[in-house]
Amino acid sequence: MSKSYQVVGVGNALVDVLSHCDEDFLTHNAVEKGIMQLIDTGRASELYGKMGPATEVSGGSAANTIAGIAALGGRTAYVGKVRDDQLGNIFAHDMRAQGAHYDTPRANGDSGHETGRCMVLVTPDSERSMSTYLGVSEHLGPEDIDEALMAEAEWLYLEGYRFDGPDSHAAFAKAINACKAAGGKVSITLSDPFCVERHREAFRDMIRDHVDLLFCNEHEMTAMYQTDTLEAAMARAEKEVGIVVCTVGAKGAFVLTGGERYHAPAAATRIVDLTGAGDLFASGFLHGLANGRDMLTSARMGCVAAGEVIDHIGARPNADLKALFARHGLN
Amino acid sequence: MSKSYQVVGVGNALVDVLSHCDEDFLTHNAVEKGIMQLIDTGRASELYGKMGPATEVSGGSAANTIAGIAALGGRTAYVGKVRDDQLGNIFAHDMRAQGAHYDTPRANGDSGHETGRCMVLVTPDSERSMSTYLGVSEHLGPEDIDEALMAEAEWLYLEGYRFDGPDSHAAFAKAINACKAAGGKVSITLSDPFCVERHREAFRDMIRDHVDLLFCNEHEMTAMYQTDTLEAAMARAEKEVGIVVCTVGAKGAFVLTGGERYHAPAAATRIVDLTGAGDLFASGFLHGLANGRDMLTSARMGCVAAGEVIDHIGARPNADLKALFARHGLN
Repeated sequence: MSKSYQVVGVGNALVDVLSHCDEDFLTHNAVEKGIMQLIDTGRASELYGKMGPATEVSGGSAANTIAGIAALGGRTAYVGKVRDDQLGNIFAHDMRAQGAHYDTPRANGDSGHETGRCMVLVTPDSERSMSTYLGVSEHLGPEDIDEALMAEAEWLYLEGYRFDGPDSHAAFAKAINACKAAGGKVSITLSDPFCVERHREAFRDMIRDHVDLLFCNEHEMTAMYQTDTLEAAMARAEKEVGIVVCTVGAKGAFVLTGGERYHAPAAATRIVDLTGAGDLFASGFLHGLANGRDMLTSARMGCVAAGEVIDHIGARPNADLKALFARHGLN
Repeated sequence: MSKSYQVVGVGNALVDVLSHCDEDFLTHNAVEKGIMQLIDTGRASELYGKMGPATEVSGGSAANTIAGIAALGGRTAYVGKVRDDQLGNIFAHDMRAQGAHYDTPRANGDSGHETGRCMVLVTPDSERSMSTYLGVSEHLGPEDIDEALMAEAEWLYLEGYRFDGPDSHAAFAKAINACKAAGGKVSITLSDPFCVERHREAFRDMIRDHVDLLFCNEHEMTAMYQTDTLEAAMARAEKEVGIVVCTVGAKGAFVLTGGERYHAPAAATRIVDLTGAGDLFASGFLHGLANGRDMLTSARMGCVAAGEVIDHIGARPNADLKALFARHGLN
């Protein structure tokens, strides 16, 4: 009998604050280009005060992935923490309105934190540089993990960024155990090369012991395995994980599994804002797998979903993804 | 000596909540197409609960106009009321980050209202249908009008939608008196044909007695003067107001002044979302006037600015308006 959810995601629940800037703005404000930096409330206020006019859109890496799966008509749920404030209302609304199940208990004023947000600065080359104030999302702990929900997941999808929270390892362990005990499988995304640097050993242990499907890009892959080349890193990864998926930007994506290797080309698209490309790749790939598609078709689905999200500002799909898949012969 | 501000706007300070929907959604939820409807908190919660995932962007009609003038490098200020909540922070940040002066006192929890918001539903034909919960913006009163600021305005720009607030007529009177006493001029936009129906007499009195420049579209113009044709309405308006500017959608805009009539064509552009077209037309036109341009050039500036804002989601400019004007030979 099929489970209630094809994919259950766990991650940092954030609202994205998107703004355009030039290269000089990044330099003058010590924002490192192309990556995610964690910032505290003081720095968040300072940077926001200097930023240009912005657009607010629900974000969070795994949340974007789950929203993408919901947009494709998949049965999916999300776990991530917001507060009972206006931005928390926006986050919860957008997740449910997209069709995903979402009922993580909200923090209140006693938490001393607001709903987390990610300031995304988009430069003229379409690259995004992210400064994240985690807020209450950082405090997702084991008490927020509903074992009954995890037991209803065909696939668990864990966001690597969550390795930064104080109780996150215990929360992940609880989620993994409940999912696996009920016959579910575990996937994880490495999220960011610097996040990998901060938590390499914990990632390694989890990947080796529990992970069935590893998502990463080439920078995260080489950071993880500390190799000079992507090839060498992929060779090591495929010895540890059943399915390894590595995105390589404009070169598309590789899948390594059972001694085989597959390659899907990137979708030809206009690039406006790279925010969410990796997240939506995971949506398409997991949607394919959960619906019994082969590895190459699933990877193509990932590339088409990623192509949609980079042709506009924001990391959630705008277009009708189901119709887009149909146009690519992927329904 | 020139004044501190070329244009000072007064209006409803709102955050737009933009979402796509199909025609059936409007019908099933009794949202009237293409206009603005005022809604209470209960209706706002109900409609938001049914809406799809959304994007939040600062809005408010006159606020959009002022943001557009600031984006063009104009000296400008805005008056409109938000609360000390997260959406109020977003509104204030976006206005200041765009370069406009904004220091209207914020309401707090005692007000019993949150920062206002406008749910904008965009249908596949790019038309927008707006449901507005005014929140604290409705309670902008005479005490919020800084006479010293009004005296520093070359042009005052009043938003017709504000006729709906309980203390708005007194607030407008105070602003007009302070501006005129210091030698400034007064402009107003009729905002919406149904707003005109609700307050026709008050509009008529103000226009006849105080207004130097009237902005409207063809629907508002005929609603105001209760004539069958636009020609008949324009003939009546030009007897009452020094400068009459009437936008007519894809047909561009007419200016009537001193017995002369000018016509500027609409900018050729892709239409994605009509939200803000009238607001940004006013930005361009006022920017032209304030910089000593002739009527036709000012109207062309209005059309180019309107063309920019309708080629993307949201009612604030995305592109570099100054560069866009330069490409049209309008700098």
